[in-house]
Amino acid sequence: MTQKRVYLFKEGNAGMKNLLGGKGANLAEMTNAGLPVPQGLTITTETCLEYIDKGNQMPAGLMDEVKEALADVEKETGKKFGDASNPLLVSVRSGSRLSMPGMMETVLNLGLNDQTMQGILKLTQNERFVYDSYRRFLTMFGSVVQDIERDKFEKILDQLKEKEGVSLDTEVSLDGLKELVVKYKELVKKETGSEFPQDPYTQLQLAIEAVFKSWNIPRAIAYRNHYKIDHRYGTAVNVQTMVFGNMGDDSATGVSFTRNPSTGENKFYGEYLTNAQGEDVVAGIRTPKPISELAEEMPALYNQYVEIAQKLERHYKDIQDMEFTIERGKLYILQTRNGKRTAQAALKIAVDMEEEGIINKERAIQLVDPNQLYQLLLPSFDPESKKQAKCIAKGLNASPGAAVGKIIFDPTEAEERAKAGESVILVRIETCPDDIHGMIPARGVLTSRGGMTSHAAVVARGMGKPCVAGCEIVKINLEQETMTSPEGKVYKKDDIISLDGATGEVFEGSIKTIDPQMGGDFEKLLSWADEIKTLAVRANADTPQDALKAMELGAKGIGLCRTEHMFMEQDRLPVVQQMIISGTEKARKEALEKLLPMQYQDFKDMFKALKGLPMTIRLLDPPLHEFLPNKEELIAEVAEMKAKSQDASKKEELLETVLNLSESNPMMGLRGCRLGLTYPEINEMQVRAIFEAACDLKLEGIEVKPEVMIPLIGHVNELKTARKQLEEVAQQVMSEKGVEIDYQFGTMIEIPRAALTAEQVAEYAEFFSFGTNDLTQMTFGYSRDDAEGKFLNNYVEQQILPTNPFETLDQEGVGQLMEMAIAKGKSQRPNIKLGICGEHGGDPESVKFCHRIGLNYVSCSPFRVPVARLAAAQATIEEQTNKTLVIR
Amino acid sequence: MTQKRVYLFKEGNAGMKNLLGGKGANLAEMTNAGLPVPQGLTITTETCLEYIDKGNQMPAGLMDEVKEALADVEKETGKKFGDASNPLLVSVRSGSRLSMPGMMETVLNLGLNDQTMQGILKLTQNERFVYDSYRRFLTMFGSVVQDIERDKFEKILDQLKEKEGVSLDTEVSLDGLKELVVKYKELVKKETGSEFPQDPYTQLQLAIEAVFKSWNIPRAIAYRNHYKIDHRYGTAVNVQTMVFGNMGDDSATGVSFTRNPSTGENKFYGEYLTNAQGEDVVAGIRTPKPISELAEEMPALYNQYVEIAQKLERHYKDIQDMEFTIERGKLYILQTRNGKRTAQAALKIAVDMEEEGIINKERAIQLVDPNQLYQLLLPSFDPESKKQAKCIAKGLNASPGAAVGKIIFDPTEAEERAKAGESVILVRIETCPDDIHGMIPARGVLTSRGGMTSHAAVVARGMGKPCVAGCEIVKINLEQETMTSPEGKVYKKDDIISLDGATGEVFEGSIKTIDPQMGGDFEKLLSWADEIKTLAVRANADTPQDALKAMELGAKGIGLCRTEHMFMEQDRLPVVQQMIISGTEKARKEALEKLLPMQYQDFKDMFKALKGLPMTIRLLDPPLHEFLPNKEELIAEVAEMKAKSQDASKKEELLETVLNLSESNPMMGLRGCRLGLTYPEINEMQVRAIFEAACDLKLEGIEVKPEVMIPLIGHVNELKTARKQLEEVAQQVMSEKGVEIDYQFGTMIEIPRAALTAEQVAEYAEFFSFGTNDLTQMTFGYSRDDAEGKFLNNYVEQQILPTNPFETLDQEGVGQLMEMAIAKGKSQRPNIKLGICGEHGGDPESVKFCHRIGLNYVSCSPFRVPVARLAAAQATIEEQTNKTLVIR
Repeated sequence: MTQKRVYLFKEGNAGMKNLLGGKGANLAEMTNAGLPVPQGLTITTETCLEYIDKGNQMPAGLMDEVKEALADVEKETGKKFGDASNPLLVSVRSGSRLSMPGMMETVLNLGLNDQTMQGILKLTQNERFVYDSYRRFLTMFGSVVQDIERDKFEKILDQLKEKEGVSLDTEVSLDGLKELVVKYKELVKKETGSEFPQDPYTQLQLAIEAVFKSWNIPRAIAYRNHYKIDHRYGTAVNVQTMVFGNMGDDSATGVSFTRNPSTGENKFYGEYLTNAQGEDVVAGIRTPKPISELAEEMPALYNQYVEIAQKLERHYKDIQDMEFTIERGKLYILQTRNGKRTAQAALKIAVDMEEEGIINKERAIQLVDPNQLYQLLLPSFDPESKKQAKCIAKGLNASPGAAVGKIIFDPTEAEERAKAGESVILVRIETCPDDIHGMIPARGVLTSRGGMTSHAAVVARGMGKPCVAGCEIVKINLEQETMTSPEGKVYKKDDIISLDGATGEVFEGSIKTIDPQMGGDFEKLLSWADEIKTLAVRANADTPQDALKAMELGAKGIGLCRTEHMFMEQDRLPVVQQMIISGTEKARKEALEKLLPMQYQDFKDMFKALKGLPMTIRLLDPPLHEFLPNKEELIAEVAEMKAKSQDASKKEELLETVLNLSESNPMMGLRGCRLGLTYPEINEMQVRAIFEAACDLKLEGIEVKPEVMIPLIGHVNELKTARKQLEEVAQQVMSEKGVEIDYQFGTMIEIPRAALTAEQVAEYAEFFSFGTNDLTQMTFGYSRDDAEGKFLNNYVEQQILPTNPFETLDQEGVGQLMEMAIAKGKSQRPNIKLGICGEHGGDPESVKFCHRIGLNYVSCSPFRVPVARLAAAQATIEEQTNKTLVIR
Repeated sequence: MTQKRVYLFKEGNAGMKNLLGGKGANLAEMTNAGLPVPQGLTITTETCLEYIDKGNQMPAGLMDEVKEALADVEKETGKKFGDASNPLLVSVRSGSRLSMPGMMETVLNLGLNDQTMQGILKLTQNERFVYDSYRRFLTMFGSVVQDIERDKFEKILDQLKEKEGVSLDTEVSLDGLKELVVKYKELVKKETGSEFPQDPYTQLQLAIEAVFKSWNIPRAIAYRNHYKIDHRYGTAVNVQTMVFGNMGDDSATGVSFTRNPSTGENKFYGEYLTNAQGEDVVAGIRTPKPISELAEEMPALYNQYVEIAQKLERHYKDIQDMEFTIERGKLYILQTRNGKRTAQAALKIAVDMEEEGIINKERAIQLVDPNQLYQLLLPSFDPESKKQAKCIAKGLNASPGAAVGKIIFDPTEAEERAKAGESVILVRIETCPDDIHGMIPARGVLTSRGGMTSHAAVVARGMGKPCVAGCEIVKINLEQETMTSPEGKVYKKDDIISLDGATGEVFEGSIKTIDPQMGGDFEKLLSWADEIKTLAVRANADTPQDALKAMELGAKGIGLCRTEHMFMEQDRLPVVQQMIISGTEKARKEALEKLLPMQYQDFKDMFKALKGLPMTIRLLDPPLHEFLPNKEELIAEVAEMKAKSQDASKKEELLETVLNLSESNPMMGLRGCRLGLTYPEINEMQVRAIFEAACDLKLEGIEVKPEVMIPLIGHVNELKTARKQLEEVAQQVMSEKGVEIDYQFGTMIEIPRAALTAEQVAEYAEFFSFGTNDLTQMTFGYSRDDAEGKFLNNYVEQQILPTNPFETLDQEGVGQLMEMAIAKGKSQRPNIKLGICGEHGGDPESVKFCHRIGLNYVSCSPFRVPVARLAAAQATIEEQTNKTLVIR
């Protein structure tokens, strides 16, 4: 027997999100909670995948199942699908397990045809409403299901409005609407070669297929790629009885949030329009009224609605984003879902709800996306600089944050220019899902139309991108690529503006930005996280400044101090170059003697900043030629000098050294411990500097915990040999100074072979630190420098890879090696210390994986420390939840 | 209790080779077989490692164990160590589990001092013998144990001979010998600051330590590295009663082989000297007599010796290399071991012994080193060219083969010049272990002194290097770096000569070489191998010529056809470049259309050559910039043209393309399937060419078996996507042609991630071919191009790595990934075809590993095919032997 593909709302519940999609599961949940939900049915997400896997073919029997379910709905509503006397009209919507606003297709008023139209006309006696609905249906069905460009419908409407001399759709005459229906049908016939399908079941099947297909349209794929959503989730299809907000002035439609999704303020929040359909609110075509006005217009309905909303918030333990329609004085809840919110709002809502007793600390921690937290650490405008800047307009503060960049009007150009490294602000009249590719790379978004729930506002908030929406006082001309301020000043493409998404202000020119101030909610939530989490969080830092910043943000030590950055400093580089260029050990040692006091001071300053917290110091890692002048430039210089008969002998000599050191694949060449084993004196100098600094500080009474890390181990003998050499130096320094230091030696696990033979490596390593950047490079065979520019983006776009493995850890491949290394390492040394110092240490998903596989700590860039702390706490909570599930 | 460290000969047996060393185990075996072996004791190889691991310290109690064992020897011989009236003298020799001729130190006559000398004098009444022995002992002990330069002893001897007006050592007067003893003792005191140690036990301990230490002297390490011998084997020490071949004309000493080790001829073969010690024969200082003369000089002893030799050959089922001494008419066997032999001899001996009924086919197969077989495939001299060449001298045909190169006299210079790519012939008066580093890279070796068992001869045979030894008719002057022919013509450094190691001829100038002729024994042995082996052997071949050669050498198909080599051909390259430089898909397709007929013809020719055998075709693999001009040269050219104010715009344009395509780490960049997924039209053209060729041939009645291999898979989706694309092309071609081809699609496993997720990859791969070159690169994180020049040799020398993993497969790391991939691959697709196409497919050790882990075939370069066939058979035999052991 095949699986059940179609569920009535009353057959589902909130737990069936994976199968019914978020929307379908919530409709079911609400139905069963006795809320006024228009009845309907949901086709499962699995059916969508079945359709796709069959090469876009309807599974046999599916329409029969739909008809059967629809019969039940007909019975409940007393209406009949396709019936000329009392016809049932439905909406057809997509709904995946995760909310993807605006990404999927929707068709309203389905079931309308020349017969049923007459039936409704008879029932409602509202000719205007019926023709308006019919022309809307023809537009949506034509554009969404039949692939006719929407502009073609709009053009006919615009011509009509011009002819009638009106500007709003609602002002079009009844005759005009009738004319539209005729003209739209002609358009459909011209474009598709067939008459508009009059059979309601044909309409329904085509609409269902359109939803299925829309799962794989480019903008849906782009959205999933951006948000790292699995492409195999599929979408459900919800077929729901239509209710009408456009049946007159006793009808309305709106969207609302239980709290302010921008600031987090605990105040009912939303927008509505009377005599309108839902799409009018969301698309931003008419600017809607604030929900508070509904309290005056229809107080009883408003109170009923607020009561339902509060009930839903407590039920779902999260802020709710709801859609409602009032049809001739009766309230219907069309949808509820957890609301998208800004980082600031997420934080405030989580802390507030805990303090209001609605949720516990664990739930509060889960309510904040760690990546959002990062936004709160982003710079905002410097108040002084902002005071002096010229504010040219003010719109809605749709998504907070500070953005500075060049005005770009075309999303595709915005994408290209941003790719080229420029800061751009995308400026549009309004945005639609087709513009996503230009919004993603823009620093900020400015629109002249649409409210706080317009597409631009919702999407920007989700992305944590500054957005000023509905800034109607500026005039945007997309064709001429100009934006005109209320003062009449014309801004062109490439002019620089600044947006303050928190206030809605738009400024001329560039404003200085400053570090953000972390508020009390921030500290509160992270202190809860620290109570719960078991994974320690360290930071990657190479300077005392970075180390101090990291500790301010809650780091408990340094997991990676890259000593090569110390070599790169202006005053050191000539000495480093001298060391490299000298061909003999003697000359190398002379240069190293000059470097020793500098490195000594580096480490002393770092240890001081750390106040006794541990510091993992990686010995020199990069290939030596990185410290020398650029090869290509030198070649050109020498060729030029010779062509001009100048004396190039000195340059040539340098070039020879550079050529000798240059490698075909430097990433896999003479670097890391290979360098140390070839020229032991370099690492010996470094270890001497570390221990001299440590000893001197200890003599001053300052605690130090150095962890010396030998990089790029592939074979145990490399570590064995290097450690022996270097530990001798350490012992010698300590005996010279007469001080005992609490130190460790360990290694990075970044070469696949080290992971495969970790039981051997662990014999000589007191700790493993997973260098997942290099480990990812070698496990995939990708040179990151080349891959990201040449094919990796294409791979993610083509869905060959689910995500960029340098951003989110590849648990299946790289993670498998990590798990092997941990098991093997522990078999040799049960109490081995385990950490990660690749960039993944600041990626929430990867941090959670690190928790699950049993690392002791993650180390990430200082600004990512709060992200990691929160993610680590979430990992603990998720683990406990899973354990509870298992125990049940 | 500590382990037993000292074994009497009678306590051991041949099976204890790992513990007692080859020499010790054989002495024990011979003792127990009742052969006339001078008695003694063996200190275990483990004791050597114990000594080394303790930082060169004698394990406590070891000397007591030695004394105890020596007491037993004293009882057997009736002599007493250090006794002035009837003293026991001993030899002290090294002996590892594998024979390492000349690499380890030996001391004879140990136990001699001023007192025991008198005792022997009284017993033998042969003053000359005693003083001669004493001065020999002083020389050996001084140079080997006390680190005094041997030259200093030789100089004193030379001065004496000059004074006495004699040329041979044996001509020195008795008084002269007495004077030598005094002068040598003075030398020892001067050099060491102490008197020569008179206490025999002190002598013994020092000698034992010298043997232990010699395990790690540079030349021993170099030898082990060259022959890939484990550095942790250690050496045993054999302390054996001295017998004397220098007690007069009824005494003699010699070495012999049961068969001719150069040709394999079944004829007793060897050399001896009367009134001499063994070292005189081996060192090549006196040119010895052929063993056949012993039959006339001492017929009874000769017959006894031959009888023992034949018994030993049957016992050990292998050619024996024996040392004997006749002391006053009594025969002693000092040593027997399996004899080193030339490739030609190994083959002949194996086949002969099987046909003589001494061994079975399995044993015959085991008797030939697969690497040696390779030598038989090396070129020899063209007879016509040789006829016209001027033969300037003839020496002993010590090791067969043809060599052409420049005369170089200094081993170090030979090494350097060979490294620089020159062909050199090392020319020496005689060679010693210190010269190994110059012998290894030389094309051939010529010596003017020493016989068939001289150092040069033995070592060269082991290396499969042409050698002419004992060519006394040329005069070599090492100081002036000249070689004078009998005619009086002087050849200087850098003059070119040719050596025929099979005939002993030396020619002036260069002789043309030709492909070798494989004889009947060759075919016979390999046919036995084919009967036994289960692993198939294919070849890597890119041209029909290579394919034909491979099949001639027994390949059963092509395991790797690299299509890029086809792209590199002169007439193709401009079209390939055109394709790469064109920025658009359209222009690329135009260029590809020109390439299609060329590739079609390539594949057609290959298929024809294969006559129905399978061919694995790898789609384009290298990064595209490999087909473009060199970047550095272009940069210099452009800079030069600009400096000279020439129009460089065209070159600049090309440079821009080259720079766009250039990568930081091309090995891990846009290549392999990444190329095919980025520009699908390239692979589509290749697959079209393959299937058009296959279909057309099938229509002509010729069988074809294409296996399309998609390279560099790291994620299953790469393979899934590429295969879908390409199989569509294949299907289309077949339907166009109306022919069905028996084909497969598969992939290389060369990226660690592919091995780690092989169960997924196998869903879309009908075969896996392990690309162990790249897999080794990524598993170790080594770029082979950089590593071998920059640190890998150093790693092997420093013993950080046991061997170069690009030559012999790293079973521990890379092999672990292979085993994982096999298990996971089979779990998904039980009948998946498994092969290897990295260079390891021609390395015997690696081939055996491939057999053990269950591959279906190995693929290697055509000339390595016989090597792989033999190794595969040996692997089967070894497996069966191990199974038998398990069953017991």
